[in-house]
Amino acid sequence: MALILGIDPGSRKTGFGIINVIGSKQEYITSGVIRMKDADELPARLKVIFDSLTQIIEQYCPQEMAIEQVFMAKNASSALKLGQARGAAIVAATAQNVPVSEYEARKVKQSVVGNGAADKLQVQHMVKTLLRLPAAPQEDAADALAVALCHANTRDHLIRMAAGSSSFRRGRIV
Amino acid sequence: MALILGIDPGSRKTGFGIINVIGSKQEYITSGVIRMKDADELPARLKVIFDSLTQIIEQYCPQEMAIEQVFMAKNASSALKLGQARGAAIVAATAQNVPVSEYEARKVKQSVVGNGAADKLQVQHMVKTLLRLPAAPQEDAADALAVALCHANTRDHLIRMAAGSSSFRRGRIV
Repeated sequence: MALILGIDPGSRKTGFGIINVIGSKQEYITSGVIRMKDADELPARLKVIFDSLTQIIEQYCPQEMAIEQVFMAKNASSALKLGQARGAAIVAATAQNVPVSEYEARKVKQSVVGNGAADKLQVQHMVKTLLRLPAAPQEDAADALAVALCHANTRDHLIRMAAGSSSFRRGRIV
Repeated sequence: MALILGIDPGSRKTGFGIINVIGSKQEYITSGVIRMKDADELPARLKVIFDSLTQIIEQYCPQEMAIEQVFMAKNASSALKLGQARGAAIVAATAQNVPVSEYEARKVKQSVVGNGAADKLQVQHMVKTLLRLPAAPQEDAADALAVALCHANTRDHLIRMAAGSSSFRRGRIV
């Protein structure tokens, strides 16, 4: 059993989602959107992200955090804003010694929808289906849950791989 | 008397500098460079920035933090990296309720060198002179001390302005 926190950071809204992984079963715990005030200056906005995530981590005690990796941004100005939000979100986890894994957007979509080029609606739909939710979560919350699900799948795969290679190594040694 | 922490964040090196302001006098306290390991992944690098600044803030208890504002970055990729470092640095201060002020690079240079287009060497030289240091500090530490000095000057100016406008208002009311 492991609680995984997924994050979809942005300079105006930061989505979060927590799932519980028990074996190959994935269970929805909570999700939501942290909203920043347009009127607030940058330090105040980043404080909202950091403080909100700190509170969420203290409340739910996730063992791991997953976040989408960014390679390309529209332009330098939006990349700077996104970077600042990502920085604040990541250190909220590392400050509480929660390990952070990054996943490419393509890999997240591939893992959740089965298509690396899936659109936002398909992601929302699959998150709803996989987590047996009564309705699709808000877009940013769905993206956060999607990266948490991607981490759960990858993690599970890595654990199986590790177990496999370990017995393989044992097989060769014995 | 006020201790001001200046920061020059970067994805590989983050400069910091602390000055003490007593009236119009500015005194050097400490400065240095936080270096990230190239081999480390992003979360580990940001953790180094956040943890180091947290430690510096706990040790010196600065009342205010100043950081250079960024409007333009070379390209989207470097803007993202810089943004992440800035985000981690800013929330290290806000997490300990240290107010953060941002200053344009031009304004920092104008305030310290008297020329908004001054180069790095001129900034290092003037920081050395203004703080009566035996040698010029390392480049990133000098930039951090420069933004702290800029904040000290602006802050002093704002206090004088506030005092002036207050007596002016009183003058008009009485």
